[in-house]
Amino acid sequence: MHTILILGTGKSSTYLIDYLIGTAEAKNRQIILADISEKIAAQKSGQSTFVTAKAINLKDDKNRQEIIKLSDVVISMLPAFLHPLIAKDCLELHKHLFTASYESEEIRSMKLDVEEKGLLFLNECGLDPGIDHMSAMKIIDQEKAKGNKIKSFKSYTGGVLTPESENNPWKYKFTWNARNVVLAGQGVSRFIRNGKYKYIPYHMLFRRLETISFEDVGDFDGYPNRDSLSYRQIYGLDEIPTLLRGTLRRAGFCQSWDVFVQLGMTDDSFTMDLPDGFTYKMFINSFLPYDEIQSVENKIKELLPWVTEEILEKIAWLGLFEEIELPLRKGSPAAILQVILEDKWSLESGDKDMIVMQHLFEIETPRGTKKLTSSLVCKGTNQTYTAMAKTVGLPLAMAVDLFLDGKIKVRGLHTPIIPEIYEPILKMLEKENIGFLEKVSFN
Amino acid sequence: MHTILILGTGKSSTYLIDYLIGTAEAKNRQIILADISEKIAAQKSGQSTFVTAKAINLKDDKNRQEIIKLSDVVISMLPAFLHPLIAKDCLELHKHLFTASYESEEIRSMKLDVEEKGLLFLNECGLDPGIDHMSAMKIIDQEKAKGNKIKSFKSYTGGVLTPESENNPWKYKFTWNARNVVLAGQGVSRFIRNGKYKYIPYHMLFRRLETISFEDVGDFDGYPNRDSLSYRQIYGLDEIPTLLRGTLRRAGFCQSWDVFVQLGMTDDSFTMDLPDGFTYKMFINSFLPYDEIQSVENKIKELLPWVTEEILEKIAWLGLFEEIELPLRKGSPAAILQVILEDKWSLESGDKDMIVMQHLFEIETPRGTKKLTSSLVCKGTNQTYTAMAKTVGLPLAMAVDLFLDGKIKVRGLHTPIIPEIYEPILKMLEKENIGFLEKVSFN
Repeated sequence: MHTILILGTGKSSTYLIDYLIGTAEAKNRQIILADISEKIAAQKSGQSTFVTAKAINLKDDKNRQEIIKLSDVVISMLPAFLHPLIAKDCLELHKHLFTASYESEEIRSMKLDVEEKGLLFLNECGLDPGIDHMSAMKIIDQEKAKGNKIKSFKSYTGGVLTPESENNPWKYKFTWNARNVVLAGQGVSRFIRNGKYKYIPYHMLFRRLETISFEDVGDFDGYPNRDSLSYRQIYGLDEIPTLLRGTLRRAGFCQSWDVFVQLGMTDDSFTMDLPDGFTYKMFINSFLPYDEIQSVENKIKELLPWVTEEILEKIAWLGLFEEIELPLRKGSPAAILQVILEDKWSLESGDKDMIVMQHLFEIETPRGTKKLTSSLVCKGTNQTYTAMAKTVGLPLAMAVDLFLDGKIKVRGLHTPIIPEIYEPILKMLEKENIGFLEKVSFN
Repeated sequence: MHTILILGTGKSSTYLIDYLIGTAEAKNRQIILADISEKIAAQKSGQSTFVTAKAINLKDDKNRQEIIKLSDVVISMLPAFLHPLIAKDCLELHKHLFTASYESEEIRSMKLDVEEKGLLFLNECGLDPGIDHMSAMKIIDQEKAKGNKIKSFKSYTGGVLTPESENNPWKYKFTWNARNVVLAGQGVSRFIRNGKYKYIPYHMLFRRLETISFEDVGDFDGYPNRDSLSYRQIYGLDEIPTLLRGTLRRAGFCQSWDVFVQLGMTDDSFTMDLPDGFTYKMFINSFLPYDEIQSVENKIKELLPWVTEEILEKIAWLGLFEEIELPLRKGSPAAILQVILEDKWSLESGDKDMIVMQHLFEIETPRGTKKLTSSLVCKGTNQTYTAMAKTVGLPLAMAVDLFLDGKIKVRGLHTPIIPEIYEPILKMLEKENIGFLEKVSFN
């Protein structure tokens, strides 16, 4: 009998927990749900006799390790910065570890230890990173096996709204971590195109867009995301001339969002300490040049001549041209903007989220250049059973299931880029309606 | 007999050392010059029997403290990040400390200790910070004494070339730390204008300019610099509606420099690791969109429509459109750009540097609003006796001289914003030809 410990049982763990509870009896497994709040853990445990809910105090080494000791396998859904702490426990207590987060330098430094102890630490096994790796590697490995050469690979992912839920001028609401959305794209994005290295600073990012189209759900803006260059090695595409990973937003979103970027309202590097009575309008005005006569709207148009009436209307809809008192006066511009947006971009009952992912390949084959587009669209059911929770949680649940069934035999520090891991998971995901639609053309 | 220890005897210490050596015999003082390189220290000591040159190993606590022990007063010309280390020694060994650097949080935390031990720690006593504080406070205190109210205070400083030395298309060369010049303005600049808080992100900074004119040396671009808001408290101007501190460059420089900022070539947040044979042209091209046909020049014009032929010529003059191999291929964009610029913007024999500073006040008086402009122009003699070394070193030397003569009696942690310090120093500076020209008009 195996025991699975799930650390962090909040919003994104719904599907993960349900899936593992669903197979617990048949596979004779115990599940421990541990959260900072026992209440939240208990809510998710349901009536199953195979599940225990526990409060965990992460800062208390003894308490944390006692709970980890009870398990064979640990799934951490905690914020990524906590993973090194949990990973160290797992090494010490000899437990396998599964996460949906990026493999950090600190985790990487444990590689030899993990191997020596015969453990499996599987990271990046959620959506992005996760399903993106698996679905891409399946195509890459297939094409390589055929002797074909991949010339170009672009991969875009977005957490957005279903078209029916796009009922505000921005066609956007927060379907996941608001802070991450506000800060998205900061730093310099790097990729390679036709053999040329390309670097885009943050303030240029939202105007260097590509339109990415989905048959059923329409057009999206794609913009490059962080360091795509490192994926040449990860994906075994060291010689590839074009490689880009990016983020998707509904078409038109990026140009409007760029107003905030250009004005400096997404900056997170310093703390504003604004006086009593400071308003939304004063907030946006503080990023505009001083002018005795001109309106805030006109100053925006003068400073950013590409701003249309439609964009101004979107900004107006957020209340930024009104003398509404700021709910937060001390914080970075990004933190204050986040509070303003959270008020307007929160999901209403009935709103559903959607995950869109598209891989675009150009492959040299004996028949000529093959264009292969592989698209995933996954819609949420409601605000508990979201597409985000489904696509992040299920791959992780399936990996643990396969592992405990003895079908994943590999040990060491891994991401799901090896066939032994991605092949069965992709098949299982298809059964849960998470499947890719492939389109192929030659020219 | 007093002993003065000067830590760091490089380029910027020339005037400081000469001034103190010049008065050593008459005032019965010993001077110790300590540098990481004994050779550099020895070069500056000349033939004077009042001077000793020493090598210092800053990382060796014992060696460092033994040298500090020999002195009564320590002047640190070391890089600012080393000052807390030296300050701790001075506290422990009961020595007075003088620097031309900004008072850091770490230094500030020593305030009570400095007071308790009856020491004087005087920071920000160079040019900027230094002469700017002193000359501004003199006017502020005078106007306040008259019962006038200061409505607006803007203060700009620049380290530039004398007009005769502006013999390249940029009219600019590195007259001080090249790295600081390349990174200048990064972060968010903050100031207040007519009671409105204003925040300018880095990528907007070089287009939010003000023209600052000097009678003899012409027009300069002024742009806001870092956090001006904190100076309200420092200068005792808590209620002032307009306060801005800024940086000066020769008119036209900022718009051309903005090309590098917009493209992301001044970014210092990540390391590029470029392949063998990577050229100047490939470097600038890596920040431009991919295009099969278009030239680098045309891509710049398309991405940044305000770029003129004149600006392109300046960029061309740096070699950035040529297939010259990069001398540095591993480093941040800023580091690589710096190497390119250092090759072109280094001073030639005969070139002279120049310091320009201007305070612009608007003051409510019984006669109406007084506009007071106070300007400083200081030209270097040659590349050893630079205007930068003169304006940084002399205030510091004079402060130590006055202190040892018993004319500065205050103790504790200070900057030169108190009359006891700034009044005699400003008078002594005038004798060295570092004087402000005042212009007054009413409207």
